[in-house]
Amino acid sequence: MIELQLLEDRIREQGEVIGDDIVKVDMFLNHRIDVDLLCEIGKEFRRLFPSEKINKILTIEASGIGIACIAAQYFGVPVVFAKKGIHRNVGNDIYTGEVFSFTKNQTTQIGVSKKYITAEDRVLIIDDFLANGAAVKGLIGICKQAGAEVEGIGICIEKGFQPGGKELREMGYHLESLAIIKSIDDGKITFG
Amino acid sequence: MIELQLLEDRIREQGEVIGDDIVKVDMFLNHRIDVDLLCEIGKEFRRLFPSEKINKILTIEASGIGIACIAAQYFGVPVVFAKKGIHRNVGNDIYTGEVFSFTKNQTTQIGVSKKYITAEDRVLIIDDFLANGAAVKGLIGICKQAGAEVEGIGICIEKGFQPGGKELREMGYHLESLAIIKSIDDGKITFG
Repeated sequence: MIELQLLEDRIREQGEVIGDDIVKVDMFLNHRIDVDLLCEIGKEFRRLFPSEKINKILTIEASGIGIACIAAQYFGVPVVFAKKGIHRNVGNDIYTGEVFSFTKNQTTQIGVSKKYITAEDRVLIIDDFLANGAAVKGLIGICKQAGAEVEGIGICIEKGFQPGGKELREMGYHLESLAIIKSIDDGKITFG
Repeated sequence: MIELQLLEDRIREQGEVIGDDIVKVDMFLNHRIDVDLLCEIGKEFRRLFPSEKINKILTIEASGIGIACIAAQYFGVPVVFAKKGIHRNVGNDIYTGEVFSFTKNQTTQIGVSKKYITAEDRVLIIDDFLANGAAVKGLIGICKQAGAEVEGIGICIEKGFQPGGKELREMGYHLESLAIIKSIDDGKITFG
């Protein structure tokens, strides 16, 4: 596991801790987006996932999209993002999954059109946060339905004190998180 | 009004017409994202909006985010995206607006944290589609609440047969649309 010091520093400086399990990074990643930082993140993902087999980046709306698009420039591949909810414009010909968000305490239906993920795809999954791994597992489920192979999972910020990362690594996935938060204690973030 | 031929060609080749007023561009812009095309779009926005005053790009989740992030690289400015719905993580200190989507037939509450848009901002608004202009007007309203100035509005695809573009130009905004659909007739798209 390799960490991007730049991202850790930014989390320390500008992350807002809420309670003992939420870190808001709205200042540079989730609401205001520091595109220069995203470029560094994108380059680091390319370094961590050098496989030339990767031919698609898969993410989930909304926060993943910017990260995935900037990263995709360094891979030379298109992005597909899973949509949340059921939209009239998506149509019915979709692979779906359910994602439970502990932060929002709700289950969201996600979907990817069958046209945009196929058995030929070698997928890099990218997302902003990994905690319980619900979103990533939802995306893996969609890849499986499509017969696509998951070449890797690139995460900006992993909450190491929640089980998603451990579970995905035990399942054999090549998971790389650029910053791993080991604990949040009394407003203080410790990386590990 | 200058058009990006590349985008028109792509709409012709890969756009899916639904009825006589909807064009789905899920193949390259709204679900699967062709990042090379976004780079060309971003460069064109920079050319059309050369003002050095622009210090922020404002868009709206979800489809606007990728376009805005790629474009922001050519402006050297951060992106802020308006969030849809009320999220626990956003907090109450936000500028809000209401956006009615004719496509989805529903009103969505949008919001931007007061921290991320201020009276110092000279904003370029970017979005994928312009039809009735509801989303752009919602974003303009947020800029006004913040005392920020709208330097320009950059749209990928304008539906010229709907009133948003005309209204915004008449209001004096510098609006540039890279492709303007003049009409959709029997599945055939005419640009103008």
